[in-house]
Amino acid sequence: MLSDIEIAQNAKMLKIKDIAKELGIDEEELIPYGHYKAKISQECIDRLESKEDGKLILVTAINPTPAGEGKTTTSVGLAEGMYKIGKKAVLALREPSLGPVFGIKGGAAGGGYAQVVPMEDINLHFTGDMHAITSANNLLCALIDNHIQQGNVLGIDPRRIQIKRCLDMNDRALRNCIIGLGGKVNGVPREDHFQITVASEIMAILCLADDLVDLKARLSRILVAYTYDGKPVFASDVEAVGAMTALLKDAINPNLVQTLENTPAIIHGGPFANIAHGCNSVRATKLALKLGDYAITEAGFGSDLGAEKFFDIKCRYAGLKPSCTVIVATIRALKYNGGVPKTELTAENTEALKKGIVNLGAHIENMRKYGVPAVVAINHFYTDTEAEIAIVREYCEKMGAKVAFSDVFLKGGEGGIELANAVIDTINENEGKTNFAPIYDEKLSIKEKLDIIVREIYRADGVSYTTGAEKAIKEIEAIGFDKLPVCVAKTQYSLSDDPTKLGCPKDFTITVRDVKLSAGAGFVVALTGDIMTMPGLPKVPAANKIDVSADGEISGLF
Amino acid sequence: MLSDIEIAQNAKMLKIKDIAKELGIDEEELIPYGHYKAKISQECIDRLESKEDGKLILVTAINPTPAGEGKTTTSVGLAEGMYKIGKKAVLALREPSLGPVFGIKGGAAGGGYAQVVPMEDINLHFTGDMHAITSANNLLCALIDNHIQQGNVLGIDPRRIQIKRCLDMNDRALRNCIIGLGGKVNGVPREDHFQITVASEIMAILCLADDLVDLKARLSRILVAYTYDGKPVFASDVEAVGAMTALLKDAINPNLVQTLENTPAIIHGGPFANIAHGCNSVRATKLALKLGDYAITEAGFGSDLGAEKFFDIKCRYAGLKPSCTVIVATIRALKYNGGVPKTELTAENTEALKKGIVNLGAHIENMRKYGVPAVVAINHFYTDTEAEIAIVREYCEKMGAKVAFSDVFLKGGEGGIELANAVIDTINENEGKTNFAPIYDEKLSIKEKLDIIVREIYRADGVSYTTGAEKAIKEIEAIGFDKLPVCVAKTQYSLSDDPTKLGCPKDFTITVRDVKLSAGAGFVVALTGDIMTMPGLPKVPAANKIDVSADGEISGLF
Repeated sequence: MLSDIEIAQNAKMLKIKDIAKELGIDEEELIPYGHYKAKISQECIDRLESKEDGKLILVTAINPTPAGEGKTTTSVGLAEGMYKIGKKAVLALREPSLGPVFGIKGGAAGGGYAQVVPMEDINLHFTGDMHAITSANNLLCALIDNHIQQGNVLGIDPRRIQIKRCLDMNDRALRNCIIGLGGKVNGVPREDHFQITVASEIMAILCLADDLVDLKARLSRILVAYTYDGKPVFASDVEAVGAMTALLKDAINPNLVQTLENTPAIIHGGPFANIAHGCNSVRATKLALKLGDYAITEAGFGSDLGAEKFFDIKCRYAGLKPSCTVIVATIRALKYNGGVPKTELTAENTEALKKGIVNLGAHIENMRKYGVPAVVAINHFYTDTEAEIAIVREYCEKMGAKVAFSDVFLKGGEGGIELANAVIDTINENEGKTNFAPIYDEKLSIKEKLDIIVREIYRADGVSYTTGAEKAIKEIEAIGFDKLPVCVAKTQYSLSDDPTKLGCPKDFTITVRDVKLSAGAGFVVALTGDIMTMPGLPKVPAANKIDVSADGEISGLF
Repeated sequence: MLSDIEIAQNAKMLKIKDIAKELGIDEEELIPYGHYKAKISQECIDRLESKEDGKLILVTAINPTPAGEGKTTTSVGLAEGMYKIGKKAVLALREPSLGPVFGIKGGAAGGGYAQVVPMEDINLHFTGDMHAITSANNLLCALIDNHIQQGNVLGIDPRRIQIKRCLDMNDRALRNCIIGLGGKVNGVPREDHFQITVASEIMAILCLADDLVDLKARLSRILVAYTYDGKPVFASDVEAVGAMTALLKDAINPNLVQTLENTPAIIHGGPFANIAHGCNSVRATKLALKLGDYAITEAGFGSDLGAEKFFDIKCRYAGLKPSCTVIVATIRALKYNGGVPKTELTAENTEALKKGIVNLGAHIENMRKYGVPAVVAINHFYTDTEAEIAIVREYCEKMGAKVAFSDVFLKGGEGGIELANAVIDTINENEGKTNFAPIYDEKLSIKEKLDIIVREIYRADGVSYTTGAEKAIKEIEAIGFDKLPVCVAKTQYSLSDDPTKLGCPKDFTITVRDVKLSAGAGFVVALTGDIMTMPGLPKVPAANKIDVSADGEISGLF
């Protein structure tokens, strides 16, 4: 089989203006970036405002395993499958981060015959959104350090600066550093920590902002530091907001590209799914709802992290009402959840499958708690046996969820027809019966909200807090930001906060080690473990294999 | 009078495809970035290869003063003036750095009624070239630190890493830092120093590269570090080159925009003019020569730094033959060179003018040493008096150089007609007589080359070297990179290496304090003083005044 980049380079792309025209978007409403990608202008968004929304479909997953379940691939194939059966679907996906492209992970634009293209562009600079966020974040940091250097009128405590510099690069050496060395003219020495750009609060803000006015309001509220006497300092206090907005004014517009089968895809924003909410931008999802009869979007990691935040943070803020969720799983991953080691997943093992499938069951049940029906998409693998397939079908039937086998990696949209039909049927059958609501009231206390999330979604017995977390909660309450949704940073590998507890763990509590405020984004982050916000490069980085020919063709990107 | 940004926002821009069409460029050969800026594809460059070149005009200046002489403004107005008299001129200019936009300097896209537009875009992210350079530079740095972390097979000495991380931001606090802190999994602690992106060697490389193949060859040769036993380590040794090229493959293509009067302008690349050669890309200049009967380009600072490097580095490498230089001066700056303090420049002072005008004389003579005739452009100011103007005219006549008064800031192209005529006449009169050659043979030793530059151009009595510089030269000779052009990093304010010595200083020597190798760019840098490669923000940064309205209009950018 060809590699992802080879398949992508063989694609017969349509000009982006033609993709747009099919959606009823005039060339003047597009801001082209080359011939195959474009931003969609505010004028277009304004024009569509009165148009009726399509149906919203969320693609989520069971708890991920080291093998990967193929959520983006399934989303792409589902949209293409929809087109095959005559339904107008528009994708709304996250944009990949540049850093991991050079590390282990490689690109993130689907895979096989279910990809978004131009794949190289999307994985490299795309339309510059990441760079704009990096610049806005680092301008804010430079303004804070400059404020301290120039007399520190606000009394900012250099030991309590909350905002970190960022780069869109996997660069371990920048995780912990001391800056401002070299004497009086070179700044005030202090500890700093670079994050990867997608971990910046600015990314989360860009993804939740309705428009430029809302963007500015959210940027203004970023908690950048505390003063020596413990008072909060916001981005507006260092007069950073207008210039940051200038840097972000193009990045706020959604990007239009296409799949290998010329299905329209809006790719915009991509915050972390642990310390942030892990979904593409609100503007992209809303636009997909205006442009398509069906909008297909995804959330990060498994549904315990991704879908929970999609519902409780994104849908709450944006007033979105999802009609259906698709839970992506693989038989391999379900066996892994049943205790089979990674190296033995190719062999049939019905016992392990029966044991591990409870993980899928928990995710199906969880989705229903939000009043949204779930469809199971099994990302098909050639090692899946008839006996294993039968077990999955039977289990899903017992759970009352439709199941579809998806073969989009190998077959593109053709391989997504079964799933497309299952989704359409589910939506039709539940028409008028879905009753979406977030799982908690944001006006509850931080602890009350956390208690609901960990009991309902993680199935834990409760939450315990470290002394530091208790103190942090009190501080957030004191400055009046506790009535925000809660964003839990937790391992993605388990429903619990212990990555080794697979399946559907029982009899455990969740430990909250620290609580941080993302006041601009509009949520309180509860940290249940060490979350790495600056990845490193592996022993043999993917970068070593990437090359460019004399005529500009990229190879080795995967 | 309106501010620069107000004038720019009132401009009647043509669609960039229409600007391109006038130049004989088909829409398919353009890579649009919105409707008013585009990159020009390699296909277009290839198609034009056999076309005859136009005449090359270099715009340079006397030694700059704190007031600024208006070199870019004059270049823009000259091109517009050329159009007014029926001559087809194409500009090739440097692209501004984002960092200074938020500091003191503000934008850098001309001024008044002689600007390139869209001004906000050009000064902010433009087409992403700066971000691509930042990413490529920082990927190289991450790969080096990762190599050390993962076992350091090459034996890189962390104390002798030559390449620095960069950001396109004025950020003093990053000048000196310690990275890699936090224990074994977080890297190897070492000293690092961020530079502003335009100071990165990658920027110089991008500006000197002929094509992707040459770009890769130059990137391969970047000296990134020395080993513990003193051997050089190049970018190719850490397998960084293919991935860096992937990041730069679009950035290597020149950008097309327009002036306020719809004159075509290619804006591409902008390296520092002290530690690097200070000119826009070779590809931009060559393309302007193919597209116009006259290509107008500029070099950094005064002619002692900018034009010298344009001739001895850029023209040497690219095989360019300039037909004429324009030396920009102001009467105010000439009086300043005659000893008048900045606050008293508005008053007539013929004595000071007569004293300071020797600075202009030196620059005129210097240009002739390269076999290129010079035209003097006096950037007119309302305080210039009849008596002062008469002195300048008389002096230039005596020097045998045409002089033109330029009023392009207030009048656009109309104010550049006198200069356009002077330039055309000079080129016609010297047709067949110009005989451009660099001032030294690059095969001479580093010291021999420096001796020629300081005697011929700076008019010094010779060069002295610190012990460190002597040692550095020996090291460069030992690894075989001494037969490259020399790039002197020197104060721009004086022909000497002392910024307080104005006019045409005599009886001085130049002190070389250190010598660095930019093997990828292809020059040896001789440092004659402390060169700041990471600017800081002022007490009241320009960023504080920048804002964006609800409909996306930027204000406060100047």
